[in-house]
Amino acid sequence: MLRFEPKNPDYRAAAVSTFDSQPAMRTLGISIVRLEPGGVELSMLYSADWSQQNGFIHAGIITAGLDNACGIAAYTLMPPMSDILTVEFKTNLLAPAKGERFRFRASVVKPGRTLTVYEARAFAIQEGTETLVATMTGTLMALPPREPAGLQPALGAAE
Amino acid sequence: MLRFEPKNPDYRAAAVSTFDSQPAMRTLGISIVRLEPGGVELSMLYSADWSQQNGFIHAGIITAGLDNACGIAAYTLMPPMSDILTVEFKTNLLAPAKGERFRFRASVVKPGRTLTVYEARAFAIQEGTETLVATMTGTLMALPPREPAGLQPALGAAE
Amino acid sequence: MLRFEPKNPDYRAAAVSTFDSQPAMRTLGISIVRLEPGGVELSMLYSADWSQQNGFIHAGIITAGLDNACGIAAYTLMPPMSDILTVEFKTNLLAPAKGERFRFRASVVKPGRTLTVYEARAFAIQEGTETLVATMTGTLMALPPREPAGLQPALGAAE
Amino acid sequence: MLRFEPKNPDYRAAAVSTFDSQPAMRTLGISIVRLEPGGVELSMLYSADWSQQNGFIHAGIITAGLDNACGIAAYTLMPPMSDILTVEFKTNLLAPAKGERFRFRASVVKPGRTLTVYEARAFAIQEGTETLVATMTGTLMALPPREPAGLQPALGAAE
Repeated sequence: MLRFEPKNPDYRAAAVSTFDSQPAMRTLGISIVRLEPGGVELSMLYSADWSQQNGFIHAGIITAGLDNACGIAAYTLMPPMSDILTVEFKTNLLAPAKGERFRFRASVVKPGRTLTVYEARAFAIQEGTETLVATMTGTLMALPPREPAGLQPALGAAE
Repeated sequence: MLRFEPKNPDYRAAAVSTFDSQPAMRTLGISIVRLEPGGVELSMLYSADWSQQNGFIHAGIITAGLDNACGIAAYTLMPPMSDILTVEFKTNLLAPAKGERFRFRASVVKPGRTLTVYEARAFAIQEGTETLVATMTGTLMALPPREPAGLQPALGAAE
Repeated sequence: MLRFEPKNPDYRAAAVSTFDSQPAMRTLGISIVRLEPGGVELSMLYSADWSQQNGFIHAGIITAGLDNACGIAAYTLMPPMSDILTVEFKTNLLAPAKGERFRFRASVVKPGRTLTVYEARAFAIQEGTETLVATMTGTLMALPPREPAGLQPALGAAE
Repeated sequence: MLRFEPKNPDYRAAAVSTFDSQPAMRTLGISIVRLEPGGVELSMLYSADWSQQNGFIHAGIITAGLDNACGIAAYTLMPPMSDILTVEFKTNLLAPAKGERFRFRASVVKPGRTLTVYEARAFAIQEGTETLVATMTGTLMALPPREPAGLQPALGAAE
């Protein structure tokens, strides 16, 4: 993995705070297990609530974990008070998402002032064995830093 | 939309049954509102449980709805007792997923014996106005019809 | 298709001029057959020079036609003197690119100040029959209008 | 990179022969510089014939090189006499394709009996400096080994 220099000395607190402000991550029981400039790893326990017809985790939920890992990875390299939007991502599903828990590892491929390109991989862990179940590549857009007490900027990747 | 001829005269019951066997759809409160050969529309109510840091629905959850709409649309064109796997999809996020409810409309672009290519769109509905918030294109793989009482076939798109 | 209002009254001349300034389009023998705000159709004759091992047009060349159709479609909606960059695209190949000539039809899904999302389809024409051979969805980025005699702006989607 | 075991002891000759049978590669002046089971590197010299409006190589041509690197990488792991089809790919463009020559490096992520998932990167080389200009992820489908003198199988990824 490339080494990146964070623009925000408090990148860790900023990334954790953004992660913690997402109810969807709490609902899915996803947590941060590793965080460094341009790289992040998230973890999720299996729950039948998120399964598809064969008892494996639904591809959309795997995508939610991957997308979030990517967003947080990109966030570590942004100036303070930035906001980020997902522009696009592609997920390839390689094996059934079957396991006791799941890991989502993301790393920034190219950080940019406006757009950041990233890649990520999802792994299923079962009885100590880790299996690659999905890959993602995608693009995030940074919105200009927010005024601390300001109004929400216009959101929407294509606006 | 193209008109397709279903191979399974009971395509409707088969598609509904596959949809109903997915706990993730129940957990997310997603339901079928329209179903025809090669086309499907799903609906989901807003819940803060699925929101990201700005209160909008998380991109991964939007993707779960889109992916499922696509799977069911493809399923309507398959022989009885088939199983389907998502091979890949790409989602473009166009506007914040902000609304009281959401619609996921999928249609098959090209059905095939092994692979089916589809496209889908997600809409947010707020105060009667519908906004396009995301698009998806993707590929599904059909697994050979299952033996009614048989073992689960080897799963995993790239196996 | 949606109807779009061009920001540049001379959108037609601007789009044609951008198209004509691409040597790759000349080399591939691709030409514009239809142009309107947010939509374009290009045409290419078959040449064995662009074929793969089975005599069909190489997927990369089909992609070149699709990508260019998308770029010109997006360009029709941009302010005068803009420059555009491809951010990303996904191509699904549906059938062999086998025909006497090929059509690339693109339309803008959502135009934006910074990012424009589009979709496109490639068709092979053989003995009067048109077959859908590929689809594309993608994202383009507009660069701020250029100074007429100015220096080239920093290019690169993720810069 | 993962280590893969080729199923075809003559994988090298088979891959080179498939590469050489593609007129598009000859037309573009692309050649193989490295080949191993599951990995390949191709090289291409700059030519203004393939440039877009700013003199950089057209995104579609970069995609042709990436797609071909991926196809050959997948081919090294297939049984003798196989044929391959591109199912889909996504390209992210990271920087202008500006250089004296270009390298396309592909590696298989997951080989499968039917589908193979790969990733690839394109680099521009200028005055000895290598710049990452594009990434690709995609899926290839293997067609059953051909009868040596047999008829061409039905082609088309979604057939």
